[in-house]
Order: sequence, then structure tokens, then C-alpha cells
Amino acid sequence: VTVTSHDVARLAGVSQPTVSRALRADGQVSARTRARVHAAAEQLGYVPSERGRMLATRATRQIAVVANIDNALYPQLMAPLHATFLSHGWRTVLLAQRDDESVGDERLIDGSVDGAILTTTALGAKLPEQLRRRGVPFVELNRTAGTVESDRVLAHNEAGGRAAAELLAAGGHRRIAAIFGPTETSSSQEREAGFRAGLRDNGVRLTPDRTRRGWFSEPDGRRAMHDLLSTKTRPTAVFCVSDMVAAGAMNALAEHGLSAPDDIAVVGFDDLAIAGWPVLSLTTVRVDFAAMAARAAELLIARIADPDTPYVHDRFPVELVRRRSHGG
Amino acid sequence: VTVTSHDVARLAGVSQPTVSRALRADGQVSARTRARVHAAAEQLGYVPSERGRMLATRATRQIAVVANIDNALYPQLMAPLHATFLSHGWRTVLLAQRDDESVGDERLIDGSVDGAILTTTALGAKLPEQLRRRGVPFVELNRTAGTVESDRVLAHNEAGGRAAAELLAAGGHRRIAAIFGPTETSSSQEREAGFRAGLRDNGVRLTPDRTRRGWFSEPDGRRAMHDLLSTKTRPTAVFCVSDMVAAGAMNALAEHGLSAPDDIAVVGFDDLAIAGWPVLSLTTVRVDFAAMAARAAELLIARIADPDTPYVHDRFPVELVRRRSHGG
Repeated sequence: VTVTSHDVARLAGVSQPTVSRALRADGQVSARTRARVHAAAEQLGYVPSERGRMLATRATRQIAVVANIDNALYPQLMAPLHATFLSHGWRTVLLAQRDDESVGDERLIDGSVDGAILTTTALGAKLPEQLRRRGVPFVELNRTAGTVESDRVLAHNEAGGRAAAELLAAGGHRRIAAIFGPTETSSSQEREAGFRAGLRDNGVRLTPDRTRRGWFSEPDGRRAMHDLLSTKTRPTAVFCVSDMVAAGAMNALAEHGLSAPDDIAVVGFDDLAIAGWPVLSLTTVRVDFAAMAARAAELLIARIADPDTPYVHDRFPVELVRRRSHGG
Repeated sequence: VTVTSHDVARLAGVSQPTVSRALRADGQVSARTRARVHAAAEQLGYVPSERGRMLATRATRQIAVVANIDNALYPQLMAPLHATFLSHGWRTVLLAQRDDESVGDERLIDGSVDGAILTTTALGAKLPEQLRRRGVPFVELNRTAGTVESDRVLAHNEAGGRAAAELLAAGGHRRIAAIFGPTETSSSQEREAGFRAGLRDNGVRLTPDRTRRGWFSEPDGRRAMHDLLSTKTRPTAVFCVSDMVAAGAMNALAEHGLSAPDDIAVVGFDDLAIAGWPVLSLTTVRVDFAAMAARAAELLIARIADPDTPYVHDRFPVELVRRRSHGG
């Protein structure tokens, strides 16, 4: 038999809402009542995870996921988020956001969701601050705004960028180009910083005329690669901020009758399913998005259960996956 | 501190119920009062509680989309559905379903959604019947269960299959193979029926040993193509039920050191973005999923507004897109 907050309330001689408030350390509850509730909870073996479920059943049991439907990562993140929340009895509402627009904040703070997973947050974005002020629990997944202290589940993007740089430098490449992502996302910035540091440490210069920048998309990668191919001295290798950008780069090569790695080496980042397609055979940096998303869901559930738990910053390791496109 | 409707009422000098009515544009409130309430709400930064609004209007203003996150079509359908519903003031809740499992029906019929878009319905599925019995408005998009009369937005799949058959027959192919989809989906059945009819009318036989079947996925397409390549007399052309299946087929060719159209012609169906990638350059049948999804959303909104409006069956035209993979 599961112990409920009603059992705790009965034993402590208080109302059920008071139990909830006492266990969330609400200031409206006196220290004496809080102590009585805690004692009753302990006596009945009313454990913290149980407590979270209790609070949740009184709420809407709905989690908002702020995500960009156009981004190739979206299904990779959404599926495990959805599955994890569902297994804990939560529904998932999608709040779609394009990279260049702000989310309808109102729907996050009007009390209709118990918490939010933010996957599109730009550096310096105001949304995390707004949510904090309104008391809406949230977890930053894959990107962070870096504005307020928060639970964050990110990849070791810098290490991945560095590994890509070392691979290309070790392959003897000296005329290396890069197609970086938007400066306003932490994931892109970190990948760029790691790649630059890796080249620097290996004595390879990344010149501005071999640097391009765009969104994490195939068309932007294709455009950037066409541009790089039009320069006087073509690069011998190109690092791409994401696999979709790398796919665009390889498509641009195909349009010029060229291919990777025979003409130009290409390295991506993410390890989407397409990277493993034999027609691309893309060397890339694997990010375990499924594990990251599941972890973010669990952190949010814990945060909803206990708003005072210390913030967690999780960095998931990445792994270089050598296929054909880097030239070995 | 959270601003409540009571704070707005105090500042505007009206009662709390008047605030609620004014903010939902109730005709009983004068324009002048409404303006005053809006000014007070704005001044205080008041966001109406969704739960309160739900109680007040007795409508959840929430639409469920039953979709398969693993399916490549999902983002194609979800983005326009989401945008169309949002522009009419509806939220979208995702009810994820894998092809081989039934959706949590409970969440559709417990009164928490105003209607549903069904995109994963298998032939003969019971869900449409259950929704009808419970009075939950729904629209079938891309697939139909065919069990109860309903609003349906489907593609001219049969015409598309026929066009693919005619293209390959006109190209002189006689040893033609097909990788069909699951028999339990209407879209797959219709594409197959059209392709078979098109071959028949052109005097080409489709033999059972050149027929394979799987899900609408790259791995299933790849597996089927490997299998076809192991047969005694290889086909000279392969029709694939979807672009992801065709990508799988082309990946299998690449693994054998072969390519389309030089060794075997390949034709897909859907015209996903990947079909246009130069590394694939896939000849395919274009389906206008964005227009279909927007139409389905509009039909559902109309159905919610008037449950007695006659049912609409919409078939969207498809278009053969000739790229490189069919061999011209």
C-alpha cells in the first residue's frame, strides 16, 4: 500500500495542503508544523520520490517542451523526453519555436504546465529568468542561456570540437576550413572554441577567409561549402558544426562533381542516423541525445518534487566516430 | 509575487468576474470596461491562468496529435499542424505512438482535449470508432482506418504509385522490383495498388520474388534491398514505398559498391528534403504534406465548431519529381 500525503496529514493532524506546503518548505507554514509533518512523514516512510508524485497528482501533470521542429535534433530529443515523462505519468506539450523567434512565454507561465524543458535557449535569453521569477521549474537541455543558475544537461561540446581538430591535424591537413553555427547558442560556441583550441595546440591556423557561419541546417551547410569552394586556395578539410551542416557540405561537393574524402575531408558533429548512411559515411562526434534527454526529464521531475534541491550541471561525454569522410 | 485577477479588479475598479469576462471578450462587458481592465492587466503584467480560463470557458482549447515520432513524416506534419492550430488559439499536445503499439486512448477521451488529428491510424483500427462514440471530434490525416465515416485528408497515393510504374516501364525496365510498406496502412496499400495497376497496364509482371515489404524506414529499405541484391537475377529498377525506404535502398547499393541509376534505378515516394540532396538525387512522388496538414487542422476546427457539418474527404494531388535516380 502506498503512503499518501493524506495519511501524513491525518497523522500530523493538519490538512493535506499543509502537508504539501510543509514538505516544500513553504514559508507560510510555521517551523513547528513543518517539524510535525516531517516527523509524521518519516514515521510512515513517506519518501521524497513519493512526495513528488503526490505534488504532481495535484497539478496539471503536463510538461512543456520548448523545441524547434525544423531542427534535425528535435525528434532525437522529443522521443526520449516524451517516453520518460509518460512513464512518470506526465503529458508533453510541444511549444514550437523557430531559432529566430521568441517562444510564446505566456503559455509557460500561466499555470497550465508543471515544468518546462528548454532546448532552444539562446545565450542571454530572458526566458529562464522569467520562469524562475514565476516559480516554473525548468531544465536546460543541449543549450544554456547562461543567465540564471539552473539544472543543465549539456554535451562536452568543447572536447568534441577539440577531437575533430586533432583528427584533421593528425591527418596532415593544414588548409582547414570551418562552418560554425550561430554565435548565440552555447552548443555552437563551445564546439567552435574547442575546434579553435585544438587547431591552435597543433600549430594549425584557422584563417577568417576559411571560416563560415550559419544555422544548424543542410541548406546553410550547402551554401557555406559552395562559398568555400569559390575561394582561391581551396581547403583540404572542413569541420562542420553539425551533421546536417556536414550533409549540406557533402551535397555541395556532389554538385561540383567532388566528394569526401577524395577531394576534401569533412567532419560533422552529433552522429545523427544520416551520418551512418553509406552514401555519406560521415566521420563525426557522437552526442548521446537520448541519454541526455532522459536525464533532463528526470532532473525536471526531481526539481518539481523538491524545488530546493541543489542545481545539477551535467556534461555528457562525446565520442569521435571515424567513418570514411575524414580520409583516415 | 504572482499577480491575480483580484489585483486587476482592484486597480480597474471592477469585480473579479468582470475581469474574467472582459479578458475573454465577453459581449456582456462594455467596450469601455474592457479597455479599463486590459489597461490594468497590462500595467500589472497580469497573465490569465489557463486553468481559470478553462473553467470559465469550459473548453480546454487543446488539440491532440497522434503521431509517430520515429517516422520521418512526423516533423513535416507536426510543424504545419502546430502553426495552424496556434494561429486559431489552440495548443497542440503530442500523443506519440509507435507503429506497432496502440495509443493511450484514455488521454483522448478523458475530456482534456477538444479534438484529435490522427496520423498513425492502421486499417481497421478501433480508435476512430471509440472517439466517435465519446463525441471527440477528429480528422484522419495521411492514413485512414476506414472504419467509420470521418473527415479525411489523404494524398492521391494510387495515382502516385501508377505514375512511378509508368515512369519505370517507359524507361524500358522489365525486371522491376518493389519494396512496399506495411499492409495495415491505407497509404501503403494505395501506393502498392497504384504501382501494381500501372505495371499491369504496361504489360510488366511484378513477380513475388521481386517483392519485399517493411516499415517506412531507412533500415527496412536497406535490408530489403540487400535481400533483392542477393537474388539470382537482379532487378534493373526498384520502386520504394517511401523516400526513407529509397534512401535505405540506395545505401544498400553503396554498400555493394553500386549506385542509382547506373546499376539499378530507384524511385521513392513523399519528396522529403533528403530526396533533393545531390548525394541521393532521388526521383520521387511529391506529396504536399504541409498543405494537407494545414487543411486537416482547418477541418478539425470546423468540426469542433459544428459537429453536424457534412464529412469531407479530401484527396490532395501528387506530382512526379524527376531527378537522377530513375535513370531518365
